[in-house]
Amino acid sequence: MCGMTAARSRGAERRAEIVRAALEVIAERGYRGASLGAVAERVGLSQQGLLHYFPTKDALLVAVLAERDQWDTGSAAREGWRLDLLASLVEYNAMRPGVVQTFSALLGESVTDDHPARDFFTRRYAQVRGEMAELLRAEFGDRLPGGLTPEEAAPLLTAVMDGLQYQWLLDPESVDMAGAFRAFLKLLGAR
Amino acid sequence: MCGMTAARSRGAERRAEIVRAALEVIAERGYRGASLGAVAERVGLSQQGLLHYFPTKDALLVAVLAERDQWDTGSAAREGWRLDLLASLVEYNAMRPGVVQTFSALLGESVTDDHPARDFFTRRYAQVRGEMAELLRAEFGDRLPGGLTPEEAAPLLTAVMDGLQYQWLLDPESVDMAGAFRAFLKLLGAR
Repeated sequence: MCGMTAARSRGAERRAEIVRAALEVIAERGYRGASLGAVAERVGLSQQGLLHYFPTKDALLVAVLAERDQWDTGSAAREGWRLDLLASLVEYNAMRPGVVQTFSALLGESVTDDHPARDFFTRRYAQVRGEMAELLRAEFGDRLPGGLTPEEAAPLLTAVMDGLQYQWLLDPESVDMAGAFRAFLKLLGAR
Repeated sequence: MCGMTAARSRGAERRAEIVRAALEVIAERGYRGASLGAVAERVGLSQQGLLHYFPTKDALLVAVLAERDQWDTGSAAREGWRLDLLASLVEYNAMRPGVVQTFSALLGESVTDDHPARDFFTRRYAQVRGEMAELLRAEFGDRLPGGLTPEEAAPLLTAVMDGLQYQWLLDPESVDMAGAFRAFLKLLGAR
């Protein structure tokens, strides 16, 4: 039993290692440009060896997207979002351009025809808009500046986070992503 | 001379047709996923025939990006931007998902390593942020709600436009891109 558990945990470690390598390869080349061979090479496996853990490229993508879910929900999923948590998340992201690059590349690709991540992002954004509306209502009540409802402001909050990531990835010297996001929160909180 | 001009103009038409086909193929597969063969097939040329007009895939990308420049500057480049022009542009874009898909896919890819469109987008965004700051100053003066300067609000305006495009492309039934953008303008103009 003990050996069994150890083997299972080695397997879990190996899987985590493969997902990390996939994140890197996607950041560099996008998902369509990523090959299982390149991921396998990075973790010192043969392509056949990799297929033991993830039988298809899309199965690996599913694991990568599950990682993304953890990435931007994490503790917030349990405790609910607050604007200051969101600002901290943006600050944290500004310290890990690789992860932001992976998911910005994936989001960009997801709008191309028949992309395997499209459904994931569509569902995810519907959920995020709902969560952001709740958060905005808790923070500012039923009306924001300009007479906006929380439901009207929610897609804007989401859009600002995504849009700033592209500007920042392209030009980190000129764009202060965390500062810009804090400025947006000031705009939402203006009275 | 007359024949020469006609030949030149046939050549220009052919080039425009190839660029339109490239826009479609990029919307469907992204730039890395696009092949010159697929573009050639769409305009009824051999790949060799296409190379007569665009000797490399990157040369074709340059023409596609020049098209993008026209797309969001156009008359505004001559007359300067105004917020109502910007709102009209977003409304216009909501009627042509194909074009928006092409450039959202390209922007997404541009953050991957050594992407040939990266410099273009980096320069373009620096320029757009400058133009947006001018526009915001002309419209609202030196201070916006929350005490933001036009320079602080400019990257947010740009981010909202890009971010809303992804949400809308993924879920056009749920996301009213033009309405959301107008709501953002209300937020900027709140007093």
